[in-house]
Amino acid sequence: MKTFSVRDAKVTGGFWKELQDLNAQVSIFNIYKRFEETGRFKALECVMDEAHVPHIFWDSDVAKWLESAAYILAQREDETLRNIVEKTVDTICAHQLPCGYFNTYYQVYAPDKIFAQRTEHELYCAGHLIEAAVALKEYKIEERLYAAMLRYADYICERFLVKKDTAFTTCGHPEIELALVKLYAASRDKKYLDLAAFFLDERGKSDTDFYPWADLTYDQSHLPLRQQRTAEGHAVRALYLYIAAADVARLKGDASLAEACRAVFGDIVEKKMYLTGGTGSTHFGEAFTFPYDLPNVFAYSETCSAIALAFFCDRLAKLENKAIYHEIFERVLYNNILAGESKDGKAFFYVNPLEMHADIYDYNEKRKSKLYCPLPERVEVFDCSCCPPNLIRFIEQIGSFVYGASEDERVIFVNQYVSSETEIGGACLSLRTDMPYGGKAEISFSGRAELRLRVPAWQNGISLSIDQKEVAPRVEAGYIALELDGEHEISLNFLIRPRFVYANENVSCDCGRKAVEYGPLVLCGESVDNGGNLRAVRIPSLDGAKADRGEYFTLTVAAERLRTSSALYSYDPPVSEPCTLKLIPYFAWANRGKGDMQIWWL
Amino acid sequence: MKTFSVRDAKVTGGFWKELQDLNAQVSIFNIYKRFEETGRFKALECVMDEAHVPHIFWDSDVAKWLESAAYILAQREDETLRNIVEKTVDTICAHQLPCGYFNTYYQVYAPDKIFAQRTEHELYCAGHLIEAAVALKEYKIEERLYAAMLRYADYICERFLVKKDTAFTTCGHPEIELALVKLYAASRDKKYLDLAAFFLDERGKSDTDFYPWADLTYDQSHLPLRQQRTAEGHAVRALYLYIAAADVARLKGDASLAEACRAVFGDIVEKKMYLTGGTGSTHFGEAFTFPYDLPNVFAYSETCSAIALAFFCDRLAKLENKAIYHEIFERVLYNNILAGESKDGKAFFYVNPLEMHADIYDYNEKRKSKLYCPLPERVEVFDCSCCPPNLIRFIEQIGSFVYGASEDERVIFVNQYVSSETEIGGACLSLRTDMPYGGKAEISFSGRAELRLRVPAWQNGISLSIDQKEVAPRVEAGYIALELDGEHEISLNFLIRPRFVYANENVSCDCGRKAVEYGPLVLCGESVDNGGNLRAVRIPSLDGAKADRGEYFTLTVAAERLRTSSALYSYDPPVSEPCTLKLIPYFAWANRGKGDMQIWWL
Repeated sequence: MKTFSVRDAKVTGGFWKELQDLNAQVSIFNIYKRFEETGRFKALECVMDEAHVPHIFWDSDVAKWLESAAYILAQREDETLRNIVEKTVDTICAHQLPCGYFNTYYQVYAPDKIFAQRTEHELYCAGHLIEAAVALKEYKIEERLYAAMLRYADYICERFLVKKDTAFTTCGHPEIELALVKLYAASRDKKYLDLAAFFLDERGKSDTDFYPWADLTYDQSHLPLRQQRTAEGHAVRALYLYIAAADVARLKGDASLAEACRAVFGDIVEKKMYLTGGTGSTHFGEAFTFPYDLPNVFAYSETCSAIALAFFCDRLAKLENKAIYHEIFERVLYNNILAGESKDGKAFFYVNPLEMHADIYDYNEKRKSKLYCPLPERVEVFDCSCCPPNLIRFIEQIGSFVYGASEDERVIFVNQYVSSETEIGGACLSLRTDMPYGGKAEISFSGRAELRLRVPAWQNGISLSIDQKEVAPRVEAGYIALELDGEHEISLNFLIRPRFVYANENVSCDCGRKAVEYGPLVLCGESVDNGGNLRAVRIPSLDGAKADRGEYFTLTVAAERLRTSSALYSYDPPVSEPCTLKLIPYFAWANRGKGDMQIWWL
Repeated sequence: MKTFSVRDAKVTGGFWKELQDLNAQVSIFNIYKRFEETGRFKALECVMDEAHVPHIFWDSDVAKWLESAAYILAQREDETLRNIVEKTVDTICAHQLPCGYFNTYYQVYAPDKIFAQRTEHELYCAGHLIEAAVALKEYKIEERLYAAMLRYADYICERFLVKKDTAFTTCGHPEIELALVKLYAASRDKKYLDLAAFFLDERGKSDTDFYPWADLTYDQSHLPLRQQRTAEGHAVRALYLYIAAADVARLKGDASLAEACRAVFGDIVEKKMYLTGGTGSTHFGEAFTFPYDLPNVFAYSETCSAIALAFFCDRLAKLENKAIYHEIFERVLYNNILAGESKDGKAFFYVNPLEMHADIYDYNEKRKSKLYCPLPERVEVFDCSCCPPNLIRFIEQIGSFVYGASEDERVIFVNQYVSSETEIGGACLSLRTDMPYGGKAEISFSGRAELRLRVPAWQNGISLSIDQKEVAPRVEAGYIALELDGEHEISLNFLIRPRFVYANENVSCDCGRKAVEYGPLVLCGESVDNGGNLRAVRIPSLDGAKADRGEYFTLTVAAERLRTSSALYSYDPPVSEPCTLKLIPYFAWANRGKGDMQIWWL
């Protein structure tokens, strides 16, 4: 599969253009402001300041911010942003050690501990800096960071691969592996791919040093990677590792790595993934747990792990294009990932529960012995603020996930429906869609290609016309297959009907309940629209449900509420009282104050 | 209301006699063995042993054990047990300080900190020692501990009430208050009652020192006690305090204390109590939380708090006899309290969840970052082993909770149905019952009295005959009222039909579900009988349910199991597959190995 850059596929309008504009105009600057206030940019000057010692992963926060800026600048000019980028790169380059090493924590506060502490995210930070450098170079924003990071990568090669004089072989937080693959793609220097492969091969073989409170599953060091068949441990770590594994499997034609990737992907999507695409169900270790353990109130579902799952789907599709990868990509994209950001683009969720009881939060406000409760509203910055810049860089890359193409560019795949334009193998495509709220896609095509249009799992019927003539769609392996030559107008409509979705019988938390989906969107209800205790609301049917596009998309449904006497326990069954339930997309929750939220209904 | 001792009402057979025999023959000795092994008895010798420093509340463990032994010896002779008691009392008396003070931790390891650390259970331990001393004296087992504890109580009076030179006024863990009331009842020395009243009055007025991780609700010091209207904080602390408040309200005719007691009782039973009678829903602080917060898997429901709720019901009934107090006593007795002990009498639960997923426990066995999970099986001793001796002393006192009588002894109340005999005001009662598994009670009566027989809330019809003649029962305020003179045989049958019980609509965890009760018993299902994922089992009806008394009581019910495809999420609703569900009393769960358990069904 060919790789598309964000310039190869230009987002032209609709849902995603609005989101990218918000990102470019608000989010990137607001994150910068918060990172500046908290000392993350200042730390790059590598001056000791005991009052503001950098967190061990601050470098990665700045790096992801830089990477976001690269994608933004690739798609529009912004002098203010460009200036901040240049100044930041200046500072990093000025303080890189002569050997190539750069880490604001280690070189200032623990220079004697460089490459000596496996748990402390050193190569993780390096990886994110490399990703930023590659993005800045690829879109010709600036190349000094790339040059600096080549030197850093060479230093890592020397220490880990040649001298082998480091205290560990694999980093406690995977990331460097996938970054080295990107560096290889940018430089075509095979040593970086080999180093990535080396780190993958070593994982689970010898490193045993880790946090005292965690076991080796936490960073996927419990087994050699090729032998791993289930998703274990810290979800972001796991998925970053699998991403690199899929990359290396593709680039090296490594069948056993590919097999491990397929197996862990299957384990995730068949047993360990929330309806929203969320993964890592517990806050105890931010980890995958055991099959079907998907608690709603206690969900962790970190925004970063959602993003990582989407990247993993994308990389698997590049390894072997299958509709399922894009289907899961779409699920995590429109649900868990988008939930990470507030409507105004300023605030973020780290944890994304599928059910919120704000009274738990209120209780905690009054008590020192607190119950576990995720945040009921997004905030602008976290102490560990990995998710905000990750989300920005992801959203800015959306164009690159829309299309696929065979290496000979004869077959073009439309994998996601995003209003956008691309040109490939001489063919031009212009796609306009009202997704995610509608099911229509209009495609202006010119050139000659086999076009493959992915059929979403949620559709309730397809209507297809070419040049205003209705055509019976021929569906192959999850795609509508068309052979096109010349200029054509393709009009596609995937019928959306709101649907109940049911969890597997083994998902104990969801037994006897159902969720509502509308197209790719998982819907939720909030107490601000529907009053308290959503758990007592039953939806007998979705007949007559009314979709409405106002400021928020809403689906209004006739429902009923279970009512009891005031007694705590009673022999009298509850009675049903009719009520109207207003559902909104899950991603839009918690934008109107603190309250209750629910996805799974009686 | 008159108070009954365990000698005033002799347990004669049936369910409770069996349990008491097990207690007297197995439990008391097994707990002794475990307490000895762990150094709790040795610590009484007050010899410094840095390898076995006593836990700050070890004295209370031994004290509750002594109190249990007193009730056992009051009801049967046992030389071995008596010898251990005497030896233990010898040791305590030999090491009491000349001033009267006794505490194995403070006098050996922190003599300069005596009465200086509010959080450290010093008066809590004193209280339990006083309770033990009073019990040993009351049943004439031995009186040296009583004499010793009078001296200790006098020393406490002197320091807290006269000199007022202690670093705190109220103990961080209530208990001394209720113990001083018992000491007053035994000695008729009003100063002990006044000291109890003083401690109650001071609570919430000035003491602010507490654990850094807890606020003042934790030990009910957030408000003056008389102003408290809701149950807050650590459940055992709260209930021990309320017990003393009810005692002092009764003995001093204190209306505002009585009002506070009524209010917190209402708050508990209307908003904060599990169906099993469990209280303190969270392990974060072992505490009451907010109304209707009653999670099943994460339930805490400590055995000690269940026992404390029963004591509180008993004390409230002595303050003002109302059927509701005995009804709640019965609920917590047959469910949460009895669940605390294993069938063989050797092992105990501290935490009593209403739902168990053993796969969480299995996951934790393999992981260092553990999920929260209560123990799936009882154990013989805990590091904090308050529950086992508390349970033993409670079960041994069961006789004292069966009857009530007006002060003039003209009205006799049967509050609990336990096979037993009593004599009061010249009247003799002999009660034989098959409860809790049946609803029958046969009472042989002689003498003259107004007899009041409590009508359980769970009955589905009453049949009553006197001297084999059927009589229409006259029910007044929850009691069948009979005027008797001479010798009579009363035959009573409360019809039991298994019933669904529903939680209030605001109990979010139980919405859409129902539990099954049989007489006073809350039933549960276990995976050992019914296979995995009990959450997917629906009980459409209890028609045709079959009760069976085998080794365990069982109720066999036709049910259905929701079945889905193997997909994690699907648009196809689950189908129902008929199955047979075997339910057992909740108290009997976890006696056949580790597995899943559930109370609330679809």
